[in-house]
Amino acid sequence: MKIAILGRGTVGSGVDKIIADGQTPFLKSLSVKSIFVRENKINLDPRNTANYADILNDPDIDLVVETLGGLEPSHSMIVEALNHGKNVVTANKAVVARHIQEFTQLARENNVKFYFESAVGGGIPWIINLERALRIDEIDSIHGIFNGTSNFILDQMTKTGASFDSVLAEAQKLGYAEADSSADIDGYDIENKLCISADIAYNTVVEPGADLLKFGIRNITAADIAYFKEHGWVVKLLGRSFRRVDQFNFVVEPTLFAPGQIEAGVHDNYNYVGLRGTTIGKLTFNGQGAGMLPTAHALVQDIIDIQVQNDHLDRRFDKQLNLDNSTKIMDYIVRTDADLAPLLPDYKVTVDGNYWLVKQINTELIHQTVAKLSGKPFFACINGGAKHESR
Amino acid sequence: MKIAILGRGTVGSGVDKIIADGQTPFLKSLSVKSIFVRENKINLDPRNTANYADILNDPDIDLVVETLGGLEPSHSMIVEALNHGKNVVTANKAVVARHIQEFTQLARENNVKFYFESAVGGGIPWIINLERALRIDEIDSIHGIFNGTSNFILDQMTKTGASFDSVLAEAQKLGYAEADSSADIDGYDIENKLCISADIAYNTVVEPGADLLKFGIRNITAADIAYFKEHGWVVKLLGRSFRRVDQFNFVVEPTLFAPGQIEAGVHDNYNYVGLRGTTIGKLTFNGQGAGMLPTAHALVQDIIDIQVQNDHLDRRFDKQLNLDNSTKIMDYIVRTDADLAPLLPDYKVTVDGNYWLVKQINTELIHQTVAKLSGKPFFACINGGAKHESR
Repeated sequence: MKIAILGRGTVGSGVDKIIADGQTPFLKSLSVKSIFVRENKINLDPRNTANYADILNDPDIDLVVETLGGLEPSHSMIVEALNHGKNVVTANKAVVARHIQEFTQLARENNVKFYFESAVGGGIPWIINLERALRIDEIDSIHGIFNGTSNFILDQMTKTGASFDSVLAEAQKLGYAEADSSADIDGYDIENKLCISADIAYNTVVEPGADLLKFGIRNITAADIAYFKEHGWVVKLLGRSFRRVDQFNFVVEPTLFAPGQIEAGVHDNYNYVGLRGTTIGKLTFNGQGAGMLPTAHALVQDIIDIQVQNDHLDRRFDKQLNLDNSTKIMDYIVRTDADLAPLLPDYKVTVDGNYWLVKQINTELIHQTVAKLSGKPFFACINGGAKHESR
Repeated sequence: MKIAILGRGTVGSGVDKIIADGQTPFLKSLSVKSIFVRENKINLDPRNTANYADILNDPDIDLVVETLGGLEPSHSMIVEALNHGKNVVTANKAVVARHIQEFTQLARENNVKFYFESAVGGGIPWIINLERALRIDEIDSIHGIFNGTSNFILDQMTKTGASFDSVLAEAQKLGYAEADSSADIDGYDIENKLCISADIAYNTVVEPGADLLKFGIRNITAADIAYFKEHGWVVKLLGRSFRRVDQFNFVVEPTLFAPGQIEAGVHDNYNYVGLRGTTIGKLTFNGQGAGMLPTAHALVQDIIDIQVQNDHLDRRFDKQLNLDNSTKIMDYIVRTDADLAPLLPDYKVTVDGNYWLVKQINTELIHQTVAKLSGKPFFACINGGAKHESR
């Protein structure tokens, strides 16, 4: 099968390399015919083109790999490829989270495939296994450490006691974090990945947006890490969603685990993602959440599935569910110089220095309360109370 | 598709239940037509039969689910089913570990499928993901906590300080351990599962047998657990194999992890299995390694794959590899009342009570040495020295 790659960054180059180096029969039957690049890069490789029509109108090309990232022109180029009867695979979580239904519908109409394994969990075969579980089970919970950059930062801070700023700078130097790190540290990247996962798990469309609760790690200090450690906790940035009948919750927030919990063993820039299903029970995956070869590996898995006609789950994303973040009750630690007690008169609140323990509060209320605090507050959910779910 | 189930124990009943309760299109198109039972059980269900020929000669039946366990008559019945043009899926690790090549070859000749997802890792989609990774990668390492019963025993001993015998009795009461627990606690069950995994990973046949190093948990005491805990370790019964070019090693042995390592977070009767591949890197899975519904879930996944013609990896298992357990060098703790130092004159050996620390010794030599000790010695590999591999 002949393919075209859109973009020649880290991931696009990884796909080209895996196919070029390929020793298996699956890889040997693939070839990269065209690569879409900027005008000034055309001469570097005879396969390069800056004219997308060359790819769209080439009847030899059966499949387009989108690795440009961002919303536009990725969205339009994916739509055009599907409308020209090309299969599309992409690693672009932002565009998939916003257009999953449109892309899937267009693929169906054009009798081609639209797959996006690498958009969530990098090299981890998360989407395919979520979809396979759904052939048998209802999935009522998805959760995990969906972002390797924030996990690297928290892990390094825990191991070295260094400040957030210095570890972020190190991550940027290592290529683990981008110059604009907001998507990684403020939870938007996790939001996209959890939206895509929830779309599939619940057969619905969860749009990224302000009503999805998110609190990132921008405000965390070395003193916070030390305080958590002193109390036997490690902090991770978690995304999680539960569903009950036609209601679901959705939250991205720092979460505390004891060293004997599996999440506490997820180090460096690894990802950890999991589901809970009717008959399979709890199933989790741990692997490389980013990086050239793992992400490219996942893209090539999609390509091979299309080549061998291993069809993925056929989803319409047409179930109506209601978002409700007021029903999940957990304990939280909040670090603030403000007096938290009067803000939460109906809750059991105790203080230790500037760390407040708030017992048995719902997700929405704690997020709303912290959002009102001035300065740079930080807070984290204590998952000890939900120990049975963390196994 | 109409199927027959051989055996009506826990797993066979689970398959029947998942199909009967099924709400998905995949499950609705399956039905259980016949169930092979003992003569005295025939009258309990109109689908029951004690005459295997009824199943073999029924042209309606496309697929046979073998859940009898053990080597015979399972082996002969699988062979007969394949020779009668029936697809076969099985949860029987003992028979698959010994006849994987024969069954696969027979299936190929008869133009049917032979799948065995549930034989390793219970509900964890381990085989399918190992096979998928191999479409792209070479796999040079497989490892994990492959046995839920021994993990339950070690976890309970660690949590409660109780003795091996009392926890084993509890596990038997809960149905986590069989009356004859040897396969679980002496490492034979893990050996079968690691053989099957290595067969697929390396495209070879690794026969269960005495040359595969195994040391179980039969001799472990509450004092051992306490000693390990005091030194910051949790003990797990691990299976692992590495390959380098045409050599591989293979060992089942107790292994020590620090609480911040992910293996230390695998509790109760959960399994944890993983691989390392050329481009995907390290990928691990954590889930229910046994139990009626998770195991049946994995069997039904195989059934659905056959129904939708999602072909698994086509393996010949014809690569010649040499077993060599003398090249992997690790640190070990050995508990024995004997004087270990003279037995290992070429190694750095230090003693603390009756616990000996042996530095940088190869797997084969430490197993051979402990096998010579009288009494009930126990030993465990310290995985801290291989921390990079445990992530």
